[in-house]
Order: sequence, then structure tokens, then C-alpha cells
Amino acid sequence: MNAPIDFPPDSVGFVNPVRLRFEESLPLASGAILDEFDLMVETYGELNATRTNAVLVCHALSGHHHVAGYYKDQMRSEGWWENLIGPGRPLDTRKFFVIGLNNLGGCHGSTGPKSINRSSGLPWGAEFPVVTVPDWVNAQFLLANRLGIESFAAVLGGSLGGMQALQWAIDYPERVRNVIAIAAAPKLSAENIGFNEVARQAIITDPEFHGGNYYAQNTIPRRGLRLSRMLGHLTYLSDDLMGEKFGRELTDDAGDEYQFGFDVEFEVESYLRHQGDKFAGYFDANTYLLMTKALDYFDPARPFGGDLELAFRKAKAKFFIAAFTSDWRFSPKRSKEIVRALVANRIDVSFAEIESSEGHDSFLMPIPEYHALLRQVFAEIRV
Amino acid sequence: MNAPIDFPPDSVGFVNPVRLRFEESLPLASGAILDEFDLMVETYGELNATRTNAVLVCHALSGHHHVAGYYKDQMRSEGWWENLIGPGRPLDTRKFFVIGLNNLGGCHGSTGPKSINRSSGLPWGAEFPVVTVPDWVNAQFLLANRLGIESFAAVLGGSLGGMQALQWAIDYPERVRNVIAIAAAPKLSAENIGFNEVARQAIITDPEFHGGNYYAQNTIPRRGLRLSRMLGHLTYLSDDLMGEKFGRELTDDAGDEYQFGFDVEFEVESYLRHQGDKFAGYFDANTYLLMTKALDYFDPARPFGGDLELAFRKAKAKFFIAAFTSDWRFSPKRSKEIVRALVANRIDVSFAEIESSEGHDSFLMPIPEYHALLRQVFAEIRV
Repeated sequence: MNAPIDFPPDSVGFVNPVRLRFEESLPLASGAILDEFDLMVETYGELNATRTNAVLVCHALSGHHHVAGYYKDQMRSEGWWENLIGPGRPLDTRKFFVIGLNNLGGCHGSTGPKSINRSSGLPWGAEFPVVTVPDWVNAQFLLANRLGIESFAAVLGGSLGGMQALQWAIDYPERVRNVIAIAAAPKLSAENIGFNEVARQAIITDPEFHGGNYYAQNTIPRRGLRLSRMLGHLTYLSDDLMGEKFGRELTDDAGDEYQFGFDVEFEVESYLRHQGDKFAGYFDANTYLLMTKALDYFDPARPFGGDLELAFRKAKAKFFIAAFTSDWRFSPKRSKEIVRALVANRIDVSFAEIESSEGHDSFLMPIPEYHALLRQVFAEIRV
Repeated sequence: MNAPIDFPPDSVGFVNPVRLRFEESLPLASGAILDEFDLMVETYGELNATRTNAVLVCHALSGHHHVAGYYKDQMRSEGWWENLIGPGRPLDTRKFFVIGLNNLGGCHGSTGPKSINRSSGLPWGAEFPVVTVPDWVNAQFLLANRLGIESFAAVLGGSLGGMQALQWAIDYPERVRNVIAIAAAPKLSAENIGFNEVARQAIITDPEFHGGNYYAQNTIPRRGLRLSRMLGHLTYLSDDLMGEKFGRELTDDAGDEYQFGFDVEFEVESYLRHQGDKFAGYFDANTYLLMTKALDYFDPARPFGGDLELAFRKAKAKFFIAAFTSDWRFSPKRSKEIVRALVANRIDVSFAEIESSEGHDSFLMPIPEYHALLRQVFAEIRV
């Protein structure tokens, strides 16, 4: 392990997460109330004297608080959006104070199904309440208060993270000046929900799931998690990219000939199995269920009779919305629904449809056009 | 059961399948040899005196020999392509003798994993050899010989069925006069293989799979089959159609409010679970594995160094190729690859890209433009 890591000069370098305890009660959309909770947080850069330079980065389905930088004494530990954040990078930590957190229900240190429920002394497991995007935004609001941040310079995220950024503009219009929502949608389509449902059923019907209380059985629903992730990866990439990456190539083990069996044979099978196995080794199945449900429930127009324009009526932020041509999970068409509702409110919004072959995952990639746009967006933000 | 069925006058009406035994050995692509095998067959219409009016209908992943008509004393027993075939229908049984069969490896009566392996006296199970599209075409060729059919007026199929039709033109150019391949592709993409692989892994990792020998355990890998079918249905439909059919509607049981749990809640979840449960109740898991593998292996250009044009060099049939705008599993782009290779060989080919919102499943639907085209194609065939 103790390998020294050579990080480039525009990385934030070594970082440390902190666990913040909140002793206040948080009512959730479901009616449940969390009496107390922890949030796992990382920050990069310095909060300025007027506390006006904070940027909140919200994570997507499998993300967490470790957005940028590296952990000492840990190989391959760079944050999941390392390419975006650092001194001189598009989200420049010489100007901004950047905050990453693990959302409630997560499995990376914030209170979630793996955490001990004080009232029982056991892990929450299936008893952990279903959480929604507005719930997360409420928790993030308490985090902002804790840090003394009156107004975020920006709230930023891709996919489910972008949905949280949108919700911020609706629920706390005075507390966010810029919203940057990438590869998002104003709500999931039936097909989107369908893919989530297949993943959930893979987990729930795994005999090792034990109704969500597998911790007590000292097991995990590994098979279900693995299938969920294999399916997820298929929908995060594009057919074209997979064609470029894998084509119909056979693995080295398979050689040039068909094997006429069910062992791994095509490169794409090997890739998916590897991704699935890796994920099942570290991600919590109950968290996966919660995250997919938060996606399915996201529908900020719902309290406004389904009228997205009305939902954004009180928003005051400036918006940057971006989508990728090859993203079929949340296509540019879905982002345009957001843009239309904003324009109808005469809200200041820029929209970019970015050429890319990398599918939904594009939002994590250092695509030159995309990063140049983000650089410009952040450069224009006054702190 | 004994319910009388009122079928329309342009249906073929009541039909009966027959099981044909082949006592000849069939060498397979894998190197395995079947010493004998059964094929389950249905026919509609009359074979003419010159035996020139036979049309072979090849089935797709979950299909079988019961293509048209009804079974006496059985409710909802219409064939899977009932809307296409009958007196006065596009594939007119007053003119044509139509043959449906269950392919080798199937679970509807032809020799497959559920069948008893004479050498052991036990079901084949996991020992049943992997079969390929060319293997199926070889078995269909023996069927043609048995029926005294020197040349098919047409070989027809959608999806995996269309691939068999294409293979006929390549492997038995003298024995087929028209090839009709709908919603097919010249080979699967990495994404296509990926979806098949997730389905296979769902089955194989189900603890009830028992390495494919679940018959002996008196169980079935129900959970895996169910997941496979849920995923399949998601990829057979289009996002638009699912939006129209289900949107984000909640089920009646769920009422107007989110339930904040993991029971079925959205209509699309209910639909997918129902389809999955139904399928798991009648389809054989080993057959599902074999069918997906036949899809993955299909690549008629492979023996020709990957050159599809060369693969079709000896083809003599006239071709009709059709694809549907909303089919993202085998999109029109993939059908055009076939058309280009045929055109390069100066082969007589017509191509139709048909507007439809029903995704890959469109090939089974009575879409007026589509059926009108098929009617014309069949009308022009001389018998």
C-alpha cells in the first residue's frame, strides 16, 4: 500500500474526509423523521471571508464525498471527479471552496442502512427510511448552515447529482446563485424506472438479501448487486462506444474460436462481469435500492400539479444545463424539457448539447468541449 | 377450459402440432453430433402438387412452432404471428403452405435441454450442446427434405428468426427463392451481447440453476428467468411506447401517493414483474441460455474473413429487409448493413424503414404500412 502517489500540480493533492454529526431532527418526505444523522464530507480550497465562494458537488447513484484529490497511503484513490476540480482546473480551487458529501442513505460514512440505529443498537438495514432528492437537499441545507454558507456560488451535479442541483433552485432559491445540472432529466421515464426496477428485483430476490437485513446474517446479496451493476454499466455507455471498446472481440483466453459454452468469451462479457464483481465488493445493496428509488421519485413538478414551469417560478439562480448526444439514459431531449421550463420563466439559462460517444458516463469524462464550457461557466461566477 | 373459440374467418382456425422424428445424425458447429432429434412442427394451408408454395417461418428467442391458429379446448391459444397468417391475410394460406417449427434446443417439444438424452436416460440439461443459427438451418433443411420441398417460396422471420432466413440464402442458395428478414442484424453489437450476458448471468447465478441440471433437483431458476424476461421486455419496447403505455402512472393499489417502499408502485414495474413471472412459469432456462448464445454467435460473415459482401456472394434469393424506426435493439442502421452487402452483390433487394413506436416488438404488430408491404411481397411471389 504505502506507495507514494505522484499527483499532478493541478490536483488538490492529499485530502481527508470528515464526518459531521447533526443532532437536529430531519423530517423526511416519507413521514419518517431522522432524530440525528452523520454526513461524510470533503472540502477542497478555502472558504473566503464573505463565505460566498462555496460550490456544492452532489453525487449520482454510486458516488460519494470523495470528489477530488487522493488519499495518502492508498493506491488509485483519486476522487470521482478529479479531472474537473483543482488549482487551475475548470472548477478552480484557487477561487472556489468545493464541498463534496455522501448523501443520506449512502454507504460511504453518512448515515444509511449500514449505520447503527441507536434505538435498536443494530444496523438500520431495511428499516432505513426511503429518502428523496428533496430530503437530501434539506440535509445539504443543514450542512450549509453548519458551515455558515448563506448562499452557494453554485450547486453542481451530473445525473442524479444534477437533479439535486435543480431541486436546490426550487426549494432554497435564496441560497444558490448558480445551478449546473449535467446529463439530468426533470423526471424519469417509464423505461428509466424499468431499468431501476430490474436492478432492484435482482437484489431483492437474491436469497442472500434476507429482506434487507443481510448484515445480521453476515452475508451480502452479491449476485443481485453484481447483476445491477452489469445492467447499469450497459445503460451508462453507448452502443457506439461499446462497439469501439469491445466490438465482438473474444478475450485472450477464448482465443480465435467460439467456445460453445457459457464461460466468459467476448470482451464485453469480461468487462461487465469485472465491473459487477468489483461493485459487489464494496457497495451496499440497501443503498443501491434507496438511490434508485430516489431517482424514480424525483419529479419536482409533482407538487405543482405536474407543471414544471410553475415548479421553477420562484427559482433565482442562473442555470447551466448540459447533455450529451450519445446519452440514451437521460438524452438531450430530456435536458431540453428543463430548459424550456426555465425559459418560460425568463430565467437566465445556457444549454449545451455536447458531441460525445461515451453515453451517460460522459459527464465524468474530460471531454474538451465540455470542460471548456464548465471552465467558462465557473470563470463567470462572481464570488 | 372447454371454451368455444370464435376465431375470425381469415384465421387458419384450429391447428395441431406434430412431432417429427429424425433418425439421422446432425453434426453441429460446436463439433458435437446429435444422433437423432425431434422437431415440433405446425403447418397451415396445403402444399401444392409441385411443392413450390412452401413458406418457412423461423422463430425468435422465445418463439416456437405455434405460429398461427388456435388450439381446441385452450383459451387464448392463438399463434404468435396469428395476425399475419391465414386465408386473406398478408401471408395467405390459400396460396401458401406455411410451416412453423420449434428449433433445436427449444422447450416446446423439439429436442432440447428438457428432453431425455437416450444415452443417459436423464434430461440433457447442461449437457445439451450449444446450437447456432447455421445448425438450426441444417435441421430445417432436413425438415424440408422430409416434406419433399425442393425450394422454399420464402423463408421468413423477425429478429433471430430473420437471421435464420439470411443464413438460408447463404448456406442453401438453391433451396430458397425469397428471404424476408425483419428487425434483424448481420451480427450482434457489443451492447446486444451485453444485454444477453446480463440475462444469462441472472440465470446462471440463480442458486436454483444447479449448473443447468435443475430438473434433477425438481426446481427451476425462477428468479433468474424472471429477471431475464423483465430485462428483455425493456429492450423490446421503446422509451416512447413505454411512455405512452405507462408513463409515470402509479398502480391502482398504490393510489395517488408514493409508498416509500419497494413493493410494486409504478405501472411499468407491475407490467415488467407480470411479464417476468409469466415467462418464468413456462419457459426453460437452459433454452433461454442457448437462444441468447445463438444470437451472440450469429455472424455469417465470420467464415468469410468478416466480409459480409463475400458471405452473400452465392445467394440467389430475392430479399425483403424491413426495420422499424423505434427499434433500438436492432435498429434500421443494422438492417442497412445487410442491404448494402446485398446491393454490392447486385442481388435483388427491397428495404423498408417503417415508422413505429413499438420498438423491436414492432415485427409482431399488425402495423398497417408493414403488413401492406408484406402483403405485396407475398403477392409477388410466384408459386
